[in-house]
Amino acid sequence: MKRIFINTWMLLVLGMGGVWRATAQQANSEQQPNFILIFTDDQGYGDLGTYGNPTIRTPHIDQLAAEGQKWTNFYVAANVCTPSRAGLLTGRLPIRSGMQGEKRRVLFPDSKGGLPLSEQTIARVLKQKKYRTGIVGKWHLGSRPEFLPTKHGFDYYYGIPYSNDMDRVDSVPYQQAITQPKNEYFQVPLLRNEEIIERPAIQNTLTERYTKEAIGFITKNKGEPFFLYLAHSMPHVPLFANEKFKGKSARGIYGDVIEEIDWSVGQIIETLKKQGLDKNTYVVFVTDNGPWKIFKELGGSSGPLYGAKGNSYEGGVRVPAIFWGPGQVRPGQVTAIGSTLDILSTFAALAGVDLPQDRVYDGYNLSNVLRDSHAKGPRDEMFYYHASQLVAVRKGPFKLLLYGNSEWAYPDKLVRLDAPKLFNLNEDISESNDIAAQYPDVVQALQNLAEEHRRGIKPVVSQLDLL
Amino acid sequence: MKRIFINTWMLLVLGMGGVWRATAQQANSEQQPNFILIFTDDQGYGDLGTYGNPTIRTPHIDQLAAEGQKWTNFYVAANVCTPSRAGLLTGRLPIRSGMQGEKRRVLFPDSKGGLPLSEQTIARVLKQKKYRTGIVGKWHLGSRPEFLPTKHGFDYYYGIPYSNDMDRVDSVPYQQAITQPKNEYFQVPLLRNEEIIERPAIQNTLTERYTKEAIGFITKNKGEPFFLYLAHSMPHVPLFANEKFKGKSARGIYGDVIEEIDWSVGQIIETLKKQGLDKNTYVVFVTDNGPWKIFKELGGSSGPLYGAKGNSYEGGVRVPAIFWGPGQVRPGQVTAIGSTLDILSTFAALAGVDLPQDRVYDGYNLSNVLRDSHAKGPRDEMFYYHASQLVAVRKGPFKLLLYGNSEWAYPDKLVRLDAPKLFNLNEDISESNDIAAQYPDVVQALQNLAEEHRRGIKPVVSQLDLL
Repeated sequence: MKRIFINTWMLLVLGMGGVWRATAQQANSEQQPNFILIFTDDQGYGDLGTYGNPTIRTPHIDQLAAEGQKWTNFYVAANVCTPSRAGLLTGRLPIRSGMQGEKRRVLFPDSKGGLPLSEQTIARVLKQKKYRTGIVGKWHLGSRPEFLPTKHGFDYYYGIPYSNDMDRVDSVPYQQAITQPKNEYFQVPLLRNEEIIERPAIQNTLTERYTKEAIGFITKNKGEPFFLYLAHSMPHVPLFANEKFKGKSARGIYGDVIEEIDWSVGQIIETLKKQGLDKNTYVVFVTDNGPWKIFKELGGSSGPLYGAKGNSYEGGVRVPAIFWGPGQVRPGQVTAIGSTLDILSTFAALAGVDLPQDRVYDGYNLSNVLRDSHAKGPRDEMFYYHASQLVAVRKGPFKLLLYGNSEWAYPDKLVRLDAPKLFNLNEDISESNDIAAQYPDVVQALQNLAEEHRRGIKPVVSQLDLL
Repeated sequence: MKRIFINTWMLLVLGMGGVWRATAQQANSEQQPNFILIFTDDQGYGDLGTYGNPTIRTPHIDQLAAEGQKWTNFYVAANVCTPSRAGLLTGRLPIRSGMQGEKRRVLFPDSKGGLPLSEQTIARVLKQKKYRTGIVGKWHLGSRPEFLPTKHGFDYYYGIPYSNDMDRVDSVPYQQAITQPKNEYFQVPLLRNEEIIERPAIQNTLTERYTKEAIGFITKNKGEPFFLYLAHSMPHVPLFANEKFKGKSARGIYGDVIEEIDWSVGQIIETLKKQGLDKNTYVVFVTDNGPWKIFKELGGSSGPLYGAKGNSYEGGVRVPAIFWGPGQVRPGQVTAIGSTLDILSTFAALAGVDLPQDRVYDGYNLSNVLRDSHAKGPRDEMFYYHASQLVAVRKGPFKLLLYGNSEWAYPDKLVRLDAPKLFNLNEDISESNDIAAQYPDVVQALQNLAEEHRRGIKPVVSQLDLL
């Protein structure tokens, strides 16, 4: 019955050129893929079931990984929040946009700087193809009105402008505010577009409300191609979980918070399926930097990696990254190197958008790997920055470490190593076996690569140090 | 059409008592489950994709975990080979059977001892219900004729009697034999039942041949309930991979070897499906102890855990454990505590076998957790042994460490700690945060538990120290 109907309909279409063209156009517009980028805050490499966490249960994220691609050599653009997000949204190393600082490593509520309007975010780039663009969650690329998401290509914004541990009230010491958090200890505002709608943001229900807003955005824009950037403010300290999740995880509050994010991921996928969007939407799940280990059980785990938020050992910058898109993304574990710097180039390619030619990009189009999880990726190297200092460089399996700090760093002092250390990351994921002495040629080649890279950098004014 | 046929057939059956009873009986015998226990050697907690390895690809094992249960708090009975295997096969701590030693921590080719015949292995226990029993792979519970698997309840044996790095030829130093291995450097025999059929065992093709033997055993015994113990001799050094796998993994030869084992797992599952046995067979995948980290890239990874083979940090004794059984095992990540000591009790319960009443068992029947991955498990504690010394005890999330050695231990000296260390393993999986000072009551309770346990142990003659 159905088949007969379709055949008749097709004959009708074939006989009516005008209708056919209209239909083709519609199909085309339907094929323009949607993008959902889920970004968590200070979550470690080892905090998800599928990345080996023994205690925290993340069935929805594990399912996302099983149905999609689980990348295991995926890097953020910087080991702390603001520059990492700048790299993600612009596809350029933060040093190129001034989104790194020497005095301050991230933006603060009193910062005068922000992401320059000359930068083009993923949202702005996709606007070329009339994408509907929304951000739900944490921004942290400038809280002055001129730097808000709505000035950077986003049609809609709902979230907090910087970290959830900022704007602390003077009367409560930081340590207490973090270990025994209450909403009133912080005065972080919650914004809708450019307006403050709540202050302090009630953090216990933020993940739930972000999820509702995300679902609302998807549902409202399902008729058009859309880009949704869902930037959770958790599990950055202070940790707040919804009543429904509090005390549920054996891992304590940190686990509760991750399990609530896992619930949120499940809600997003369910929404896509309900709305019939799951075959035409790419979902990417990634985090902004390593776990904040100095907070012990309130911080996450780097899994098998050495290091943490704030340093450039693998644990500071290598992050879980899952790409999901039934029929578009070929499932598997991907060991090719990738970076958040590549997301803009990849989305642009998938959407058929040309990138501006007037600037340097540090990203690659990963779409060939998305189609074939075993394919050779376009990226063979990674440059690790600490503020404006190039501290390590990776090419293939080899990483040359030029500067070091402590394993649980942040805040911590960076020290130039007397002799650079060399690691084979494929064989020695924990950076425990310095092989510089055995491979002087590799050391030299990586030093040359670092030098060549440095020459290509033209530093600009630091937005983070502007006061 | 099909439904009509069945209904007619059922009417026929209902009218014919004799046939119905025969059918019911047949169904019953069909319901007696099969067990396949896959046991790897020196593989680390972090060497599988699903347990977070970034480089090694294990799609078949990952699939097993996705369709079954992935246990993340699962312990072996000892941190080295021989006692771990004794605990696995007897369901009793090795100190109860004498399968631990002070001078020698494992059995060697010249050892006079072995698993006493008074011990009842899983194979012997299942013999009560007429199970067909086979072991393919490494035994390491006594190489003298009187201790071979065929004396311990196994109908069939194909494999090597001890570790693949033993029987080394005198002319080649150990380090060279391990780092640049050749088959002729070792004189390990390959046995079929009680006969040597090859010496030295050609190790490059052992994993492949074990797999073929395992498939042969399954196919031959499919009409009866069977227990197959497939004890891979890899990835214990020296590492040998089949030509088809050599050079394939980015992780080097260690990864090649694991990826070949992963292939083998795929072959076993495919065989079960082909033979229509997948709905009535439990497959358990587990390893014997932590990775042998002193061999660096030739050893495995503990993932997020601290420690390695030979010590009682988590990395030495906590292992990947996957339980698979479509329709029988409810999929999920299991955080309940389990042990290889529990496998005998669990298999016995599933097969409807009573355990002998004349001895102490250290295992629990885990079948309620197999039916419900979120169920509270029967095991709430774990006792960690180093030879005959109780070195740590766990209850719930808390682990009290009484003795320590170095992180990459083995061989290494054990040192009694001046002050025991306390860890909350749920919140601090890497044992990095000693909280003994904050929880004196927990320290005391765990010391009492250790003391109570010690009182229940009647040491017997060490089989490993017999020379």
